Amino acid sequence: MGTLEHGDPSAGPASVPPTADVATAPEASAAEIARTIMAGSTTATLASLTRDGDPWASLVAYGLLGGAPVLCVSHLAEHGRNLAADPRASLCVAVPDRTEDPLATGRVTVAGHVEIPTGEEFEAARAAHIAAVPAAGTYIDYKDFTLWVLRVRRVRWVGGYGRMSSATAADYAAAAPDPIVPLAGPGIEHLNADHADSLLEMARALAGFPDARSAVCTGADRYGLDLVVSDDRGTGYTRVGYAKPLDSIDGLRAATVELARRARSTAAAKQS
Amino acid sequence: MGTLEHGDPSAGPASVPPTADVATAPEASAAEIARTIMAGSTTATLASLTRDGDPWASLVAYGLLGGAPVLCVSHLAEHGRNLAADPRASLCVAVPDRTEDPLATGRVTVAGHVEIPTGEEFEAARAAHIAAVPAAGTYIDYKDFTLWVLRVRRVRWVGGYGRMSSATAADYAAAAPDPIVPLAGPGIEHLNADHADSLLEMARALAGFPDARSAVCTGADRYGLDLVVSDDRGTGYTRVGYAKPLDSIDGLRAATVELARRARSTAAAKQS
Repeated sequence: MGTLEHGDPSAGPASVPPTADVATAPEASAAEIARTIMAGSTTATLASLTRDGDPWASLVAYGLLGGAPVLCVSHLAEHGRNLAADPRASLCVAVPDRTEDPLATGRVTVAGHVEIPTGEEFEAARAAHIAAVPAAGTYIDYKDFTLWVLRVRRVRWVGGYGRMSSATAADYAAAAPDPIVPLAGPGIEHLNADHADSLLEMARALAGFPDARSAVCTGADRYGLDLVVSDDRGTGYTRVGYAKPLDSIDGLRAATVELARRARSTAAAKQS
Repeated sequence: MGTLEHGDPSAGPASVPPTADVATAPEASAAEIARTIMAGSTTATLASLTRDGDPWASLVAYGLLGGAPVLCVSHLAEHGRNLAADPRASLCVAVPDRTEDPLATGRVTVAGHVEIPTGEEFEAARAAHIAAVPAAGTYIDYKDFTLWVLRVRRVRWVGGYGRMSSATAADYAAAAPDPIVPLAGPGIEHLNADHADSLLEMARALAGFPDARSAVCTGADRYGLDLVVSDDRGTGYTRVGYAKPLDSIDGLRAATVELARRARSTAAAKQS
């Protein structure tokens, strides 16, 4: 047990706050981010209950029916027997690690209970599982396998240190996965490799870090760009928002060009 | 629910068996493999129990004290409160995915209960956690964080389709992580890139696939090489064992050269 005082749930490597106003930068809701993370993977860790009510963590593959995970597990496996005996279940999905600090990565936990779908929902669930896990085509119809749909009641998103939120089941069900996030990698690389000057201008003029010495784009979604900036005080995390949300990756280039122009004209207006 | 008969817990993409004798190829025990997988990561998914006894899956970072995972979690986080209220816990660690089929990857589940270490064990546990998770140095001593050691009672290893086993807690505690596995990547690449002919000879002469058309090395441990082979019937999985177990990656080259020579001389002896 530690002995230091620590009132902030955002425990983790220290970061520095902005020193100037940050232009309004809309962010995805927790429900939307959770849907995006769930849509970005086909493997999760399942927490189920053993006969003794002990927690049991195991790897599963899943597809998605809306936001509801669809599992296909054998009752010859412990987690399959667990679900059949007690339908309470939780899944954790983590964004593939891109940093050296494992707890800086985004992850989502969904929890509820599993049910065996019937009728049209069975067909849709079966198709959703195979679409996500093609190898399941070879065993999904075997008798010892059961298709389960997780009825999500609780959603918890953790985006790294100090970024975390819950979403209601209704908001989670109604949200859509972000169309930009899974495709943004090349665009982010291009921004960092060829437009570091523009990112720095955005950080200084729009994102509250007028004394930034460097700015690196670490994420892009339909609403804007995540930036990691450093100034003489240390490292900070901030964001810049596009003029309007994007519906497709095709709009990313124009949106970042507009951001760069806006940063330049804002800087010019401040100086004059 | 599926409708096909299926008596084999190794459900998954079909594979073909050897058609000839396989030379003795020792394999790591389930306990040893579990220790190796645990030592190969610093992040796991924790299954804990909520106040209602529901399972809750969440991402954690861990170090290892022997084979015992050492967690450091905040009671401001749900999983921290869960462990404080009910010490039953399970961790699942998966080998980073190298295949297109997520369920072909190796993973291990350990389960037991968490305890707060004291005295010398506390210091050792704290050091083990920081060694594995350097970022924890910034928060491990905060009051809201608790260091937990998982007392492992159950160990379950799944190596992919049809490869699975349990280990006793005693065997798990006594086993050592494989010294070759974490360093074998470049050697495996070299074998596949430059010695495909030798791998094919091993598959044909030593590994029970006399009609193999190709052989790819997919793993190397202290006892031998994992091979994926194909012949006219399909794809099969087999193994060749070194003359003696390795204690260090430095011995891998000589061990594979010996295997290649043995394959060649065995083939020659069969033909004469």
